Amino acid sequence: MPYFKYNMKDIEPVIASIKTEAAVIDQYMRKDLDALAPDIDGLLYRVLEYGLFNGGKRIRPLLLVLSARLCGDNKEDAYRLGCAFEYLHAATLFHDDIIDNSTFRRGKQSVFKKFGTVAAILAGDFLHALAMEIVGKYCSSDGLKIFCNATRGMVDGEFMQLRNADKHNLSELDYHDAIMGKTGLLIAAACEIGAIYGGGDINSITALREYGVNLGCAFQIIDDLLDYQGDPAITGKAVGNDFFEGKMTLPLILTINNAEKEERSRLLDLLKMKKIETDCFKEVYAIITRCCGFKKAKDKALAAVDNALDALSVFEKKDVLAERGVLEGLAHYVLIRKK
Amino acid sequence: MPYFKYNMKDIEPVIASIKTEAAVIDQYMRKDLDALAPDIDGLLYRVLEYGLFNGGKRIRPLLLVLSARLCGDNKEDAYRLGCAFEYLHAATLFHDDIIDNSTFRRGKQSVFKKFGTVAAILAGDFLHALAMEIVGKYCSSDGLKIFCNATRGMVDGEFMQLRNADKHNLSELDYHDAIMGKTGLLIAAACEIGAIYGGGDINSITALREYGVNLGCAFQIIDDLLDYQGDPAITGKAVGNDFFEGKMTLPLILTINNAEKEERSRLLDLLKMKKIETDCFKEVYAIITRCCGFKKAKDKALAAVDNALDALSVFEKKDVLAERGVLEGLAHYVLIRKK
Repeated sequence: MPYFKYNMKDIEPVIASIKTEAAVIDQYMRKDLDALAPDIDGLLYRVLEYGLFNGGKRIRPLLLVLSARLCGDNKEDAYRLGCAFEYLHAATLFHDDIIDNSTFRRGKQSVFKKFGTVAAILAGDFLHALAMEIVGKYCSSDGLKIFCNATRGMVDGEFMQLRNADKHNLSELDYHDAIMGKTGLLIAAACEIGAIYGGGDINSITALREYGVNLGCAFQIIDDLLDYQGDPAITGKAVGNDFFEGKMTLPLILTINNAEKEERSRLLDLLKMKKIETDCFKEVYAIITRCCGFKKAKDKALAAVDNALDALSVFEKKDVLAERGVLEGLAHYVLIRKK
Repeated sequence: MPYFKYNMKDIEPVIASIKTEAAVIDQYMRKDLDALAPDIDGLLYRVLEYGLFNGGKRIRPLLLVLSARLCGDNKEDAYRLGCAFEYLHAATLFHDDIIDNSTFRRGKQSVFKKFGTVAAILAGDFLHALAMEIVGKYCSSDGLKIFCNATRGMVDGEFMQLRNADKHNLSELDYHDAIMGKTGLLIAAACEIGAIYGGGDINSITALREYGVNLGCAFQIIDDLLDYQGDPAITGKAVGNDFFEGKMTLPLILTINNAEKEERSRLLDLLKMKKIETDCFKEVYAIITRCCGFKKAKDKALAAVDNALDALSVFEKKDVLAERGVLEGLAHYVLIRKK
């Protein structure tokens, strides 16, 4: 499997390229906001500026632009279309922070904590409509359908999470559905719509969608692993949040499904206690390690990245190898990232 | 002016026709929901069913269907497109009820009171995306642009209201902008998009947009008058809510702009008290009456209806007179409605 050879140093050129592209995307977003400014309320403008320009990596617009290029498109408008994905992403974050009562986002106050619930709901709705309008402008109704379907799927996933909040016997399939809603659908839509916009044939479109689905899954699994194993000095977050909140993520699901009866019931007891002590977390960590929950989850992420890389194999032409290289590098980066 | 001759009895056939059409629109909405059911979470389904089927008059879909017919379209798909306007309308109500902390909507618990804030935010987002998808399916990107612009304008209007919440020197222009955001934009968009969808020429499109803008304004002015003058046994709401909440609506704006110094400062004092007594409301009512605030506001509504009727004069062909008659009747109904 090719990814084993990768380490942070191999990825550095890819990260540099992502940063350069993110700066370009930021410029397009800034132009959009400047164009809106004369027609919108001052407070709405401030909320949008605060919520949109927060040092985000602009991965979704980047995936759209790269997918379009892989399919032969090199027009500037791909950046404009790409921004729609960042707007929709931001809209969901504005609303999610209310839903999860999250105080912080990327080390700053969340929009709803800073500007209040009303402003966060409304600004999310505004960005939502802006995103749809842009996709409608640059894409056929097929593209818009994929975009709207992804949005609806994300909402449906949140409802599923509400329903499963107190369920401790989640299957891997439940988890897969949940992470698709959380991350996978929009990332896959960015790749698929990019391919359609770029004029790709059906094989290219399917390949990029497949890449996106797997990239999104790997991303979310690693995110869930970092919640147990991350270095708080790097991630900026304390470990064990998911467990303390009773959230069933993959390392835990794989452990509970495979543990002996005694360890399983001990884990479930600890899970029900919610706000547990540090000593208990050490115990949880030890049980998951013993049952290979972390290793198995990591293997799933590796397999997803492998699938993502396989999907890209249809792009063989020399003139798109650079773009393919960035997408490959991105998939590797997802695996080895520390935050 | 033609509207003076109208009374409730003249309008009865129009109301019967609206009710028949509303039942047809309900059937299309039910089909949409049935088609969604297998793919969405059970709770989301229940929220949508509860929030969508609440005895609404389906005015926005109806306006779209009639506008399309006036421009020569008689296809069934107009109903399907029309539903998008009801979905967007419902989405804004789900979110508005959170924003205004409204316990009731049409005599039932509001969605957010019954299912909670999280479900109301998410179900609104779902309907939002569904509405955009439908408009994208049946309209050109021009139609979607009008729809998204209306949505963004509605949000912008809410921000303006936030900003003006404690301002007591609102101008008529501020009020006009506020009611456009609240009602006018989406109603005008239903008429305009209906005309575009129906294949209308530029004159027809402009005429129907003009009709919609004026209908929306008249509707909202009468709504604001009913808040002072309505019969609680018919409206189901106590009088004076807007004043108690410090809301500056047209009767009050026209009074304050025209009152003598003493009465103006008395009104402003009462307004600042917010939760005032019944006796005080009688005093407020008397001052507004003395300054002709109610009459002047009613005159503005009459003028708006007159403009709406004038706009329809371009539709002279015999085969669309029935549709034109319903739109005319609707404009008259807005004026004489008691709730």
